[in-house]
Amino acid sequence: MAFDIDAAMPFVGDTLYGRLRRACGAEWDAYVGHRFVRELAAGTLPKDEFLAWMVQDYLYLVHYTRAYALLVYKSDTVAQMHSAAGIVHGLLNEEMHLHRQILAAEGIDEARLMRTPETIETLAYGRYVLDRAQSGDALDLVVTLSACLAGYGEIGLRLMCDPATKVEGNPYRDWIATYGGEIYIGLVKEGLERMEEVSLSHGGAARFALLLREFRQAVWLETAFWEAGRTALGFESDG
Amino acid sequence: MAFDIDAAMPFVGDTLYGRLRRACGAEWDAYVGHRFVRELAAGTLPKDEFLAWMVQDYLYLVHYTRAYALLVYKSDTVAQMHSAAGIVHGLLNEEMHLHRQILAAEGIDEARLMRTPETIETLAYGRYVLDRAQSGDALDLVVTLSACLAGYGEIGLRLMCDPATKVEGNPYRDWIATYGGEIYIGLVKEGLERMEEVSLSHGGAARFALLLREFRQAVWLETAFWEAGRTALGFESDG
Amino acid sequence: MAFDIDAAMPFVGDTLYGRLRRACGAEWDAYVGHRFVRELAAGTLPKDEFLAWMVQDYLYLVHYTRAYALLVYKSDTVAQMHSAAGIVHGLLNEEMHLHRQILAAEGIDEARLMRTPETIETLAYGRYVLDRAQSGDALDLVVTLSACLAGYGEIGLRLMCDPATKVEGNPYRDWIATYGGEIYIGLVKEGLERMEEVSLSHGGAARFALLLREFRQAVWLETAFWEAGRTALGFESDG
Amino acid sequence: MAFDIDAAMPFVGDTLYGRLRRACGAEWDAYVGHRFVRELAAGTLPKDEFLAWMVQDYLYLVHYTRAYALLVYKSDTVAQMHSAAGIVHGLLNEEMHLHRQILAAEGIDEARLMRTPETIETLAYGRYVLDRAQSGDALDLVVTLSACLAGYGEIGLRLMCDPATKVEGNPYRDWIATYGGEIYIGLVKEGLERMEEVSLSHGGAARFALLLREFRQAVWLETAFWEAGRTALGFESDG
Repeated sequence: MAFDIDAAMPFVGDTLYGRLRRACGAEWDAYVGHRFVRELAAGTLPKDEFLAWMVQDYLYLVHYTRAYALLVYKSDTVAQMHSAAGIVHGLLNEEMHLHRQILAAEGIDEARLMRTPETIETLAYGRYVLDRAQSGDALDLVVTLSACLAGYGEIGLRLMCDPATKVEGNPYRDWIATYGGEIYIGLVKEGLERMEEVSLSHGGAARFALLLREFRQAVWLETAFWEAGRTALGFESDG
Repeated sequence: MAFDIDAAMPFVGDTLYGRLRRACGAEWDAYVGHRFVRELAAGTLPKDEFLAWMVQDYLYLVHYTRAYALLVYKSDTVAQMHSAAGIVHGLLNEEMHLHRQILAAEGIDEARLMRTPETIETLAYGRYVLDRAQSGDALDLVVTLSACLAGYGEIGLRLMCDPATKVEGNPYRDWIATYGGEIYIGLVKEGLERMEEVSLSHGGAARFALLLREFRQAVWLETAFWEAGRTALGFESDG
Repeated sequence: MAFDIDAAMPFVGDTLYGRLRRACGAEWDAYVGHRFVRELAAGTLPKDEFLAWMVQDYLYLVHYTRAYALLVYKSDTVAQMHSAAGIVHGLLNEEMHLHRQILAAEGIDEARLMRTPETIETLAYGRYVLDRAQSGDALDLVVTLSACLAGYGEIGLRLMCDPATKVEGNPYRDWIATYGGEIYIGLVKEGLERMEEVSLSHGGAARFALLLREFRQAVWLETAFWEAGRTALGFESDG
Repeated sequence: MAFDIDAAMPFVGDTLYGRLRRACGAEWDAYVGHRFVRELAAGTLPKDEFLAWMVQDYLYLVHYTRAYALLVYKSDTVAQMHSAAGIVHGLLNEEMHLHRQILAAEGIDEARLMRTPETIETLAYGRYVLDRAQSGDALDLVVTLSACLAGYGEIGLRLMCDPATKVEGNPYRDWIATYGGEIYIGLVKEGLERMEEVSLSHGGAARFALLLREFRQAVWLETAFWEAGRTALGFESDG
């Protein structure tokens, strides 16, 4: 797939995020080009796997939101606190709300959602992110979260740009349009600008080796997370 | 002053908060009946001391807000996360905003605010609260913050109920009306209900001795904080 | 296997730990009676699986030690700080040292150890424990860690008491003797006494529902962790 | 006082610590040349003020030790964990033990020690350090602690090098000899080497502005802390 990141996400360029992403090479490709993603594009992903994945994604978002709450706590300025609190608000009232709506329409209400056990992938990714958020500073936190934030935008754009993606009759068309759409890509742009600002004041370039270690681990956990739905359903992994 | 808490704040009663407050006895009275409070009531507090205090109160609110951000992180349920995130939002967009407005009207803009050094009282109280918030669980956190949340409501009500409080021409009339008013008292009621809920699930009654230790320390720091304005101005303390 | 915990570990009884363990029922049995444990007892566990597991156990111990360092930070008294610092010291200088020695004898030196990626089970368990340690108080911390501390002692004792356990020529005889031996069981006893003390001052009995939630999750993660060696080797799970 | 830091502490030079210390200028001089220090040198410090200060210093060491426990948790490597755990061990078993011995010889036993309320200076400094330790990364932590670690060594050396320091019959001779002595200066050297190592991997030079902010605050709190004994005794500050 000839995806041109410089054309699709011109704000990435040579930022800290851009350098981390490139340094991941094949590991990055394994994440954004995972079977799960290809099946979303082809519209062939079994619906029960998708729903099981979405339930796990909701459970993961609880911890992703907790990590952004730590960013409020770890901010250097009131302006940064405002920005981080805005993300927490958006996650609770929009992203998580949307998940609840979609799942409710499929007969999975919040009580059932919260009774569902987290799979090993959900536990590992949610708690890894929180560990980096607590042990590191604000830069470690935003770097670790950026694999999710910007990766999903890239996946959305990749699928939207790819002529092979099935559009008509694809049950995952909305999912693709959400993450590849203007609103989400706008959030990614803002998030990466915030990360670049924190990188400048917190010595990002000079900390590259340690930051890459946590970014790469997050990418690996994202890749593993695509299997969270199958694990929940008791599939044998074909990883 | 014959203040009847059961009449003024009927929601306190025999809650964990009610028991902690009563256990503080004379230390509680020293906080809510401090010279600073009496001078607010009489309208005799020097304006420059009030403004210096308000600047420090703003600097303190930064850390108070960070503590509530930790409550989002430490919540047991999504509903509790919502509630805590709502407080963070209210503090940043209302309480801190109001302080900025009042101070701006007096010629103290945000840049000057953020250049003002914290006094020793501000440093001590803000960071003590954060330490309890991080080392303890959600109950330690809300207990430590309740001395501020509910104490200010009680002070407002005390001054409003007291016939000796000067009303006409008192420059601090708005301050008194804010903390003794329906909106703030509504927030106190909500906050104490939340604290009682956390107390029930987190064994509040059985942890009374340790909780009292941190509540009492917070009350002592509140009392010390009334001097923050004088310390900032370089007054000799008459504590 | 007719294991009598009251005879083997008389200090458990009706402590908080005893109640948590009993409340786990079949989940506890799945942990202490896992295939991996049965294969240790029979001496049939493939050596490469055992070594891969031990490497992961070493990587896990890094985070287990970090959690005990948080206990120093979360202690209420200097005596508790001493006790927690003693565990950190013991983990770094004894338990981790022993792992390094055993693995070095098998040709796996520390450099190679630290280059080994953590499996999903190691990531999940190590970071889950740290999350409870940071978001909760000292009691949440010791409760979450007790599944590992006391569970391994019980497994050691179970295997030592069971006449079916192969003794002569069992390559895992030392492992069994370590965890079922007097020194380790002494540490378990001390640890559970410390936990009971923290439980009394921190309202353990009244917080049972929330504590059980995190204890049960730790037990589930322990059970999953027995597969960490296989995951590292790329086995298909037969869980 | 013509103190030549390059001769006395040749390991400081142009390290991150050296640059931070120089950037503090007059604030640094106010700390290391405080009235309290001059009275130690002259042997004129009232004994009850010294003892009250030492009690507060002990109460502060509790939080200083908790901060180093967080360094174990925030370490990037097992070697760094070992080093940080060694400091925790040394603080609990040597520095705090020595304080207890000196105070016990003066009739102040541990029970009385722990009943003594912390002064506002002790609360402010101990909790500020912990806040930077939790919100920042390992570099923020060691930078904030270095004002204490290396500042006391410099004070000891300054007094030992100064011909004006009273030696014969000075009741504080031991105090001066401890902090200016080979053992303590060796610990300072080790600590600053560790800090320089963390600085290199964590982008110290590129984060100078933010690091200076927390270092300068710690220096200001050290200066304030010299009054902790007087505050405890109820003296009027002559700061």
